[in-house]
Amino acid sequence: MWSVRGATFKYELSKPQNGAIVASRIGLGGIYPNMDFNLNQAIAVLARTPKALDALLRALPDGWVLSNEGDDSWSAFDIVGHLIVGERTDWMTRARLILEHGEAREFAPFDRFAQARETKGKSLDQLLDEFTEARAKSLAELEALHLLPKDLAKLGRHPRLGVVTLSQLLATWTAHDMTHLHQLARVMAHQYREAVGPWVAFLGVLRCEGHSAP
Amino acid sequence: MWSVRGATFKYELSKPQNGAIVASRIGLGGIYPNMDFNLNQAIAVLARTPKALDALLRALPDGWVLSNEGDDSWSAFDIVGHLIVGERTDWMTRARLILEHGEAREFAPFDRFAQARETKGKSLDQLLDEFTEARAKSLAELEALHLLPKDLAKLGRHPRLGVVTLSQLLATWTAHDMTHLHQLARVMAHQYREAVGPWVAFLGVLRCEGHSAP
Repeated sequence: MWSVRGATFKYELSKPQNGAIVASRIGLGGIYPNMDFNLNQAIAVLARTPKALDALLRALPDGWVLSNEGDDSWSAFDIVGHLIVGERTDWMTRARLILEHGEAREFAPFDRFAQARETKGKSLDQLLDEFTEARAKSLAELEALHLLPKDLAKLGRHPRLGVVTLSQLLATWTAHDMTHLHQLARVMAHQYREAVGPWVAFLGVLRCEGHSAP
Repeated sequence: MWSVRGATFKYELSKPQNGAIVASRIGLGGIYPNMDFNLNQAIAVLARTPKALDALLRALPDGWVLSNEGDDSWSAFDIVGHLIVGERTDWMTRARLILEHGEAREFAPFDRFAQARETKGKSLDQLLDEFTEARAKSLAELEALHLLPKDLAKLGRHPRLGVVTLSQLLATWTAHDMTHLHQLARVMAHQYREAVGPWVAFLGVLRCEGHSAP
């Protein structure tokens, strides 16, 4: 059972050859399986994220770019900085570690605060350029690996999550783009929390609590 | 008091000349006021949304475009359809109603399901073109009104929310783009809910419950 948006879905669990548990959702009107990981479909999203962020943020007035949700929460500027750090130090580094060393070598932890150092003194437009270049480089490296289905099932070791597969890493890279797009939309909407007046009651994004990892 | 992302913020309320209550957030480390409504800043976002959606979605594989969150929830395709309906029947129609009739005429209710009729038989790429054109037309009409600060304070009547101002309507138009970008990122991430394996624990977007209006 899984609860999404107030509705409860049943899941059927199955265990195919690779030992991973696969949950297929059974909705009221039929079966709604989520998408299986597919390398080309993941790359289709990964390749579009820099363009989408550029279209949304380039030359936007500073209020939208630098405002956060209070305290040490992140602004649009911080989010783009964080995505650059991921390209430089995490995603492809971890993929290569899986392919070269398997479970023998644990991933280095993801430094969620490295962007403060990486972004110092830069403008958002510089960061957007850097993210575009870094992502293009990552994807060129990924495509040069010519991964086969058997490679996608290879195992690595995460410092907190334990054994993971290369396909899970690549699916997470893709969903991680979406988690920060989701955050960005929330941070921007938050700036108009008072300006919308009574419409605050109808705008779901203003009731999103961020759901950050504990 | 207001609770955001698990933290509780205090608000100072003030009542400037126009009668609207302004809440300024007082954070632990100082005052973090949200942005006041500013027409040019709102237009800066409204003008970018079609480009951002186009960059993210055009020619994306169907799995990402047509999958939803189960039952009668919305896909990326439905979300773009909904945004088109808003341009054609709601935002500028309501703005003109405020300017021409004030509180005397109530807005027509927003039809949240009209997109099923508007999108039938169309491709996502057609919808992206239609949204781009419809938004450009709306913004041309908005700019042609040459709104003054006194116009932004004019009142209208919402069928459920009661009296609202033109500036609240225009702020809501902007935040409404963000609520659907937030939704879109969540719907896309949802497709990889199983594919990410144990990383599900770290991806906040997969714990977002949608926060739709009751």
